[in-house]
Amino acid sequence: MTPTAASRPATIMTFSQLLTKAVQQKKNSVLVGLDPRLESLPESLRTNIPPKDCVAVSSVFEYFCCRIIDIVAPLVPAVKPQAAFFEQYGAAGMQTLENVIQYARSKDLVVIFDGKRNDIGSTAEAYAAGILGKDSPWKADALTVSPYLGDDSLEPFVKTAVQRNAGIFVLVKTSNKGGGMLQDLQIDGKPLYRHIAEYVQKISLETKPQSGKYGSVGAVVGATYPEQLAELRAAMPNCWFLVPGFGAQGGAAKDAAAAFDSDGLGAVINNSRGIIFAYQKEPFRSQFGEKNWEQAVEAATKQMIAELKS
Amino acid sequence: MTPTAASRPATIMTFSQLLTKAVQQKKNSVLVGLDPRLESLPESLRTNIPPKDCVAVSSVFEYFCCRIIDIVAPLVPAVKPQAAFFEQYGAAGMQTLENVIQYARSKDLVVIFDGKRNDIGSTAEAYAAGILGKDSPWKADALTVSPYLGDDSLEPFVKTAVQRNAGIFVLVKTSNKGGGMLQDLQIDGKPLYRHIAEYVQKISLETKPQSGKYGSVGAVVGATYPEQLAELRAAMPNCWFLVPGFGAQGGAAKDAAAAFDSDGLGAVINNSRGIIFAYQKEPFRSQFGEKNWEQAVEAATKQMIAELKS
Repeated sequence: MTPTAASRPATIMTFSQLLTKAVQQKKNSVLVGLDPRLESLPESLRTNIPPKDCVAVSSVFEYFCCRIIDIVAPLVPAVKPQAAFFEQYGAAGMQTLENVIQYARSKDLVVIFDGKRNDIGSTAEAYAAGILGKDSPWKADALTVSPYLGDDSLEPFVKTAVQRNAGIFVLVKTSNKGGGMLQDLQIDGKPLYRHIAEYVQKISLETKPQSGKYGSVGAVVGATYPEQLAELRAAMPNCWFLVPGFGAQGGAAKDAAAAFDSDGLGAVINNSRGIIFAYQKEPFRSQFGEKNWEQAVEAATKQMIAELKS
Repeated sequence: MTPTAASRPATIMTFSQLLTKAVQQKKNSVLVGLDPRLESLPESLRTNIPPKDCVAVSSVFEYFCCRIIDIVAPLVPAVKPQAAFFEQYGAAGMQTLENVIQYARSKDLVVIFDGKRNDIGSTAEAYAAGILGKDSPWKADALTVSPYLGDDSLEPFVKTAVQRNAGIFVLVKTSNKGGGMLQDLQIDGKPLYRHIAEYVQKISLETKPQSGKYGSVGAVVGATYPEQLAELRAAMPNCWFLVPGFGAQGGAAKDAAAAFDSDGLGAVINNSRGIIFAYQKEPFRSQFGEKNWEQAVEAATKQMIAELKS
């Protein structure tokens, strides 16, 4: 059931160069989120899968994600598996996550491990080495990281990312409504997210290669707050943006436009449910139906690429 | 090599009642951190283990952690496996984490999954259901959670915790120096950590059973900041505290004293390296040596219990 995963040769590019190259080659900035949910899978896949059987569910997740990868790999630069949906099924789910990452890399996709990990000291080192390090069993190209524990908690991630030519994306302004509870608090006349943004810009600049605009430290900035997106683009000129909130969360192409630099680079726009479960929504539902869910994935991906171009 | 894990019957107590009972039965508040590191294992265990062999390393971690559990289970109320050290070894490490949690529960230890997880909406639901839910493959009693994404990101964790009689510990004031970067920022005359503390107190109070002082939502408050510990004890009268920073990080018993309520309850004090790798440090090093590492674990645990009592 599982396609064979081949190893991609070690890159000599930094993460920002790898992502830039992928975006330029595919001529778009679509990031496909791999968020498998049993209840949303096409019926043909979820029939006869006992919901509490972690091995059976993980196995069908692996098939589903690898099929998505087959369809989107020729079209988009990157994918973002969401760790929670795999971790939910224990070690079996985590084995599937390992396999899905390897398969995506074998198809020359940039892989961002969405784990929002963070801890202190040697524990942060373990997360960084574990997910991004040279001997990592996961071997993701980048990882999302939370900043609540402060600068010394982020340093091990930055250090490991630079060593392995990998990247991190620090949560700055998230796409959910409740994110404002902390992120919008005013400190010295500026919201908290601006303080984080300035720190992220600083550390990214320190990792920037001489010949290039972007460093290895990016930022998560939601498409649901277009004004802040423009403000943060200006405040973080040397950071790639990972932009969630497009599609199911309400963000549209015009909202995401402010994330890009003047060359049309510097951001990847994530869409998870709107692509992987496209068969559930119009116009794809009528056009393809549940049976032809793979064609719906392809059509939804192409539609998003066209929307972002216009 | 792995001891057999038996299932603990479903509890009808809330998490705070379970933890209170465990602390009262064992007559101490020691929380043993399970942070396995290959390079720190006793030589007899790490000899012939290839450091890059995830299955071999995970297997010796499982043996080591289960032996620690055998030694500390008669002495202390709770253990805290740190997810990073298992995740570092991929799916094999995560299988070991599952097995270690089950084994600790079979020995009637309260198990706190230290993952500092957080995300939004349905992803937060997946983490909560995955780690704490009734069909969770991990079946931890509690989980540490980061608050950067705000109130709506915490709600799914609280909801699932209450449903399953589990608990969460929200990061409030962490033990590392860099934690102050965000947590000490002044907002409306109060540091950020106080704002988080007040929110955590509010939601914990909402989950408090009629007959009891504590709710299902606790707080992580470092022993390295004794003054803030006293301030936060007063600000969060209905929250259990998970207090890191004791031992290797520099916190002493007198620093942790402020975490307790007038009944000597309301806090568990974590010690990881100081107990599990006690054989490396004096007086245990001279007294027992590497060969008798298990006796060093027992002696260090008993010493910490005595220190906290005095």
